[in-house]
Amino acid sequence: VATVRLISDAEASPEVAAVFADIRATRRSDFVNAFWRALAADPPLLRATWERLKQVMGESREGGLDPLTKEFVYIAVSVANGCGYCVHSHTAAARAKGATDAQLGDLWAVIGMAGQTNALATALGVPVDGAFDRTSD
Amino acid sequence: VATVRLISDAEASPEVAAVFADIRATRRSDFVNAFWRALAADPPLLRATWERLKQVMGESREGGLDPLTKEFVYIAVSVANGCGYCVHSHTAAARAKGATDAQLGDLWAVIGMAGQTNALATALGVPVDGAFDRTSD
Amino acid sequence: VATVRLISDAEASPEVAAVFADIRATRRSDFVNAFWRALAADPPLLRATWERLKQVMGESREGGLDPLTKEFVYIAVSVANGCGYCVHSHTAAARAKGATDAQLGDLWAVIGMAGQTNALATALGVPVDGAFDRTSD
Amino acid sequence: VATVRLISDAEASPEVAAVFADIRATRRSDFVNAFWRALAADPPLLRATWERLKQVMGESREGGLDPLTKEFVYIAVSVANGCGYCVHSHTAAARAKGATDAQLGDLWAVIGMAGQTNALATALGVPVDGAFDRTSD
Amino acid sequence: VATVRLISDAEASPEVAAVFADIRATRRSDFVNAFWRALAADPPLLRATWERLKQVMGESREGGLDPLTKEFVYIAVSVANGCGYCVHSHTAAARAKGATDAQLGDLWAVIGMAGQTNALATALGVPVDGAFDRTSD
Amino acid sequence: VATVRLISDAEASPEVAAVFADIRATRRSDFVNAFWRALAADPPLLRATWERLKQVMGESREGGLDPLTKEFVYIAVSVANGCGYCVHSHTAAARAKGATDAQLGDLWAVIGMAGQTNALATALGVPVDGAFDRTSD
Repeated sequence: VATVRLISDAEASPEVAAVFADIRATRRSDFVNAFWRALAADPPLLRATWERLKQVMGESREGGLDPLTKEFVYIAVSVANGCGYCVHSHTAAARAKGATDAQLGDLWAVIGMAGQTNALATALGVPVDGAFDRTSD
Repeated sequence: VATVRLISDAEASPEVAAVFADIRATRRSDFVNAFWRALAADPPLLRATWERLKQVMGESREGGLDPLTKEFVYIAVSVANGCGYCVHSHTAAARAKGATDAQLGDLWAVIGMAGQTNALATALGVPVDGAFDRTSD
Repeated sequence: VATVRLISDAEASPEVAAVFADIRATRRSDFVNAFWRALAADPPLLRATWERLKQVMGESREGGLDPLTKEFVYIAVSVANGCGYCVHSHTAAARAKGATDAQLGDLWAVIGMAGQTNALATALGVPVDGAFDRTSD
Repeated sequence: VATVRLISDAEASPEVAAVFADIRATRRSDFVNAFWRALAADPPLLRATWERLKQVMGESREGGLDPLTKEFVYIAVSVANGCGYCVHSHTAAARAKGATDAQLGDLWAVIGMAGQTNALATALGVPVDGAFDRTSD
Repeated sequence: VATVRLISDAEASPEVAAVFADIRATRRSDFVNAFWRALAADPPLLRATWERLKQVMGESREGGLDPLTKEFVYIAVSVANGCGYCVHSHTAAARAKGATDAQLGDLWAVIGMAGQTNALATALGVPVDGAFDRTSD
Repeated sequence: VATVRLISDAEASPEVAAVFADIRATRRSDFVNAFWRALAADPPLLRATWERLKQVMGESREGGLDPLTKEFVYIAVSVANGCGYCVHSHTAAARAKGATDAQLGDLWAVIGMAGQTNALATALGVPVDGAFDRTSD
């Protein structure tokens, strides 16, 4: 089920087709996953989302995060937000970028640990230590 | 404010004092942050949480994630769960482990991006592509 | 799958049947969606939920929000809470109340934007500006 | 800080004053906490919320949950939703209803455990076992 | 407290100052709220976020949502995500755009209602009705 | 769909088989649900998670929570986190431990109520009453 029709290549307007083509070229793969086919329901939103995602998830400035680490961060957010689709698509992306079973096992362990201690800190209402404040460093 | 008293060193029972000592030894720092002082309200929970956290966030098996990457993942989960305390404590921890401004900037960009696309995937009800399924690989 | 049986018209007790009849009359449609058939597992909860929902989502007092705007707000909350069922049922309700593709496209864009900036504000731990406080206006 | 003014007894309209009086009578206490003073910004919402809360959190039908168990459930939801105010007010309410330190310690342990395994189940995308389905029992 | 320093006008680099100037011009107000001063920790992220927000929250294409409705949607998402800062800043923005007390009261009632039924739908595991599916309309 | 293969008994390594055997012995049932078969993708994580869950959800110290109350708390957290799998598995577990329809009806009512008032407290930005603070009791 979905709240919109998934747009096939045959149905794509020129604006949508151009984004699909850039997705294929950027990823060097013919596969366009369902997220983009659903987002094609609103072509300007499709374009803006893809342009920003390509920029954020690709190669960074000198000294920034590498693409695989970004996928791990993306998965972590998606799990905490309960987005099943996103967890599946970015776990596949992480594997495609070389994630090993040991890395994924560590990732799951940290995500689970954070889920636990986030809950404990909130349950206890722990006040932020002064040492952690950077407001007026 | 907090839902429990924060336990000072002077008030710590022997069981609590032993955990505080191990926190100090492991981190090579005299500072015991408020999370552990709050959790000391229930000594068995304090001990179990610290033992597991020390194991998960420390050095991994061969080929696993390095400690700084784990902090980035932890921050990502904490942001998505809205745990302000955890965001502060683990951003400080990431900096202590060498995180640069460029890495933190990338981290925030990816967290923001994921927050956006998680919402879009859920709003559109996107069905998981068959290609992402590993159930019976 | 569901954690309760969905109650068909044939199985409905008089108390449940009365609520189903009011749903049909209020909506001028014979369709009773699965949410109410599941909630019928607890008739008092079914009745209290329906009575309140009918009141909140219907016509407002003078100067309040119109029913379609309420659906947009409902969808926004449901997306952020990750409730797939609710996203589907209220997107259908919004369309039934006349939502256009342009309005839904804008809705998704704002939901995505908020998902992004919510994450950024939490990641940065931004303190609330004094100008936003109304505690003692 | 708050997004609305907190209404003092002196400022309360007759409709608001009536709800404040019922809160005091029901709880046998003169204290009206800030949640109700904020909600007084919209008197019909104040009344509807209080009436429903009084009904849901009070004594149940024969065989239902006791009031203290309900507080534990309330705290659990509030932690997972990241509502600091609610965690504080309902932890205080649980203590007022007799919650012991051992019960609160267990509560925190279960909340933390669930936070961890919820994350793991979502990260792994675990499909629901057929044995758990009650749709058509 | 915050995880970064808030950048004052005096400290702003030329790139940051240009964004601050555009915020002031767009809003016709001298006030630059703390969110942007925190985000200035990473100038490219500041710029990309502001450019997109200006586009999404401003005047829409013909037939889209009006700016005040967008603020209501934004508030709804922010509440569900538990972002206190965002709730405060966008409630102030809604008032600045003319939101009345009756509209805000309705907004809170719908947000509360959705929070309740989202939880019920998830607790009951309600399957999506076939009638709500648009996958292959 | 899942992000990992589910491990059957035939495929289980000795380490995984030992955990599966302990699950069966502890629960006095031959059924090993999909969560554990998925978690078997990382045997050390499987073991650590099962050991801790067995400890937390089983019989408590004198004066702690009983196992059925723990299941109710677990369900509450899982609903708020939007973990469909967890809601299903722990609702089944609660029934296996004797939960009645009246108890489950009350549970759902409290979960729904909390979902509503959590949202209202966050929307209003209610400040924590001084009376609820235990920081320095």
